[in-house]
Amino acid sequence: MSKPLNIAIAGLGTVGGGTLKILHDNAALIAQRSGAPIKVVAVSSRDKAKAASLPLMGARWVDNAADLADAPDVDVVVELIGGSEGIARTLVERALANGKSVVTANKALIAHHGLHLAELAEKSGATLAFEAAVAGGIPIIKTLRDGLAANKFTRVAGIINGTCNYILSRMTLEGLDLQPVMEEAGRLGYLEADPSFDVDGIDAAHKLSILASLAFGAAPAIQNVYAEGIRPITKRDIAFAAELGYRIKLLGIATMTSSGVLQRVHPALVPMSSPLASVNGSFNAVVVEGDAADRIFLEGRGAGAGPTGSSVVADIMDIARGVKYLPLTLPVSALKDGVYADMQQCKSSYYVRLGVQDQPGVLADITRGLSAQGISMQAFLQHPHASGETVYIVLTTHETTEGAMQKALADIAALPSMKETPYLIRIENL
Amino acid sequence: MSKPLNIAIAGLGTVGGGTLKILHDNAALIAQRSGAPIKVVAVSSRDKAKAASLPLMGARWVDNAADLADAPDVDVVVELIGGSEGIARTLVERALANGKSVVTANKALIAHHGLHLAELAEKSGATLAFEAAVAGGIPIIKTLRDGLAANKFTRVAGIINGTCNYILSRMTLEGLDLQPVMEEAGRLGYLEADPSFDVDGIDAAHKLSILASLAFGAAPAIQNVYAEGIRPITKRDIAFAAELGYRIKLLGIATMTSSGVLQRVHPALVPMSSPLASVNGSFNAVVVEGDAADRIFLEGRGAGAGPTGSSVVADIMDIARGVKYLPLTLPVSALKDGVYADMQQCKSSYYVRLGVQDQPGVLADITRGLSAQGISMQAFLQHPHASGETVYIVLTTHETTEGAMQKALADIAALPSMKETPYLIRIENL
Repeated sequence: MSKPLNIAIAGLGTVGGGTLKILHDNAALIAQRSGAPIKVVAVSSRDKAKAASLPLMGARWVDNAADLADAPDVDVVVELIGGSEGIARTLVERALANGKSVVTANKALIAHHGLHLAELAEKSGATLAFEAAVAGGIPIIKTLRDGLAANKFTRVAGIINGTCNYILSRMTLEGLDLQPVMEEAGRLGYLEADPSFDVDGIDAAHKLSILASLAFGAAPAIQNVYAEGIRPITKRDIAFAAELGYRIKLLGIATMTSSGVLQRVHPALVPMSSPLASVNGSFNAVVVEGDAADRIFLEGRGAGAGPTGSSVVADIMDIARGVKYLPLTLPVSALKDGVYADMQQCKSSYYVRLGVQDQPGVLADITRGLSAQGISMQAFLQHPHASGETVYIVLTTHETTEGAMQKALADIAALPSMKETPYLIRIENL
Repeated sequence: MSKPLNIAIAGLGTVGGGTLKILHDNAALIAQRSGAPIKVVAVSSRDKAKAASLPLMGARWVDNAADLADAPDVDVVVELIGGSEGIARTLVERALANGKSVVTANKALIAHHGLHLAELAEKSGATLAFEAAVAGGIPIIKTLRDGLAANKFTRVAGIINGTCNYILSRMTLEGLDLQPVMEEAGRLGYLEADPSFDVDGIDAAHKLSILASLAFGAAPAIQNVYAEGIRPITKRDIAFAAELGYRIKLLGIATMTSSGVLQRVHPALVPMSSPLASVNGSFNAVVVEGDAADRIFLEGRGAGAGPTGSSVVADIMDIARGVKYLPLTLPVSALKDGVYADMQQCKSSYYVRLGVQDQPGVLADITRGLSAQGISMQAFLQHPHASGETVYIVLTTHETTEGAMQKALADIAALPSMKETPYLIRIENL
């Protein structure tokens, strides 16, 4: 057995605590499988009180996390603070510049600064690992980088935000509206103080940009992700979708198209028969399509102390075993300038929910709006309603482009009979 | 970029052809991701004519595959011949002894000689990689060895024989009996000349012993796998199972129990709601349960040129990148003497199909047989039938042990009203 690998952990929240617990509980097994013991020599966190309840195994406390980057006895810095700027960024940049390897669960940091950090790692010969940044306990980074390395990828897609999936699952299984589910989730501590990162699709966008970077050989390009969240979804949409044979999920989808990589995060109708339709609660799932392996589907817990800690410790073990790889799978010099397709060119079929005044000719006006853009309707649903109420009608279309659909929807929204802004959800046969 | 990694491929069947095609079609991508080009310097196969249709990229032909183990210009031997003995074994042993790394898709070889081969690799410093030996394109070996390395595993289970899954899927979806499906599969070339390896569960047993070895840190122990195939399953079983809310799948299951590792391959009823129930055709799927990551589910193509070739090439790329790991995750000296639980102690609930003579008191006799062993019945089904015919009744039990169930079944089989040997299928809530 080799000499211990000395690590320092910055951030003792859920993931930091989980990481310490795994390193403590499975120490012997981890040492055996790594060929070296993993020793936590230092920890740092915003809240010193937290450390008291954790198995610190003799690690020293450091007040300023950034100092860990300069500690001579630290081989690997484990950054579990979060956030694309501030102390997390300073710590990671300084550690890599000093030749210390970094393991992080920080998707925002990799999404925003992945290229720069990969450059720092390459220069100093350090490793930068971020398995825990995407899809919690699912080893999706290693699957793209190692297991499926022989493939030309065509698509990476999935359910990569557990909070949204939890909210949509409860809405689906219990017939609830979004607001009460979010309020309860907030009370139970499942939501961040500012839930926008989750429910507006930003967190999923961060993760998708990382997956797309690995799959398509370009730097993460968060600025090129189209992102739309789940706030407008009502229980009525979920019921209509079910009637049509679909479940509503927040998906992240990166596709190689003829005009470049298309990155998008938005709610989608997936067929009941899709394996994604049965991924419920805080579970995540990713579908990878490659030219050789065809289609691989992975499902697992998307968050939590154990699952995310499992991915953090796996990265630490890689370093202990001396596994070398390039953070973004290619040398920085070989990373392509990403070419990104425009969302307007995205091809999809659509679900559209319309709240209209019950009057003759409404449907004719709507279909006219669609056909003016060459869009044909596939299905149409309307539930019985009391006279005078807003009438909800739902239609699905055959495949068209986002551009055409948005034009049609603008025309339809302007009809005098519209009582609400029309709402569209894309249909994905994944 | 480093100097080329020189490989030799022995065996140019489906997987060999797929491997060559991927190395040819994705050569630039593979070189970039590996940091070195992969160069096929030699090939060998039983049938020289096959080579003519493949992209050999200038590789020389070698008549005797075993000679590849001694070729000075070969860094890595890729063994795609198959079989636990003969030329495949000779080639792999000789290559490892000579310090050449080996990539193989040969499950029988690893299941029977894994420990010895790992010893040879350890001694010479060579790598022995076999991602393609289990579950085709699914990177399950790397997932156990790397992605989930921090976990104490409790169970690895799944659908790991594509042929049986194809047969059972067609029986299920088309209401067919086993024999006609097998005959057609044979005509279409989907079956081996001797289909026993597949339909009697031997191939799945090989694969399961490899998964259990990696998960539980012992040498592969094929001799300790309980294996039962799919031949006795009738379309009646599939229909009864469906009525009870289940699908029938051939599963391999390795569990860490209080009395050791239990390895078993047998048909099983899985709930319709299980993700395994929807894995159809030649797809494979594996569920891994670990103390940190909880439950991970992976699905993908279990065989075929592309998927299996994808796994072979990924292993070659690992070697090109200088990734070092121990073939069985632990040093040979640290591999535990496996302790294996006895199938008689296996706990399960059961589906039992009985063909009986229609006469008063039959059900009373059967329930007496069960209750004598302390087994209680959970559900009971009997379909309408013409008088005089064999009556098929199906029952399910609450959880009991295999030992108790086998005793009860022996008593029931001896009842004078039995017209057929009773048939049991275990129920697995996976």
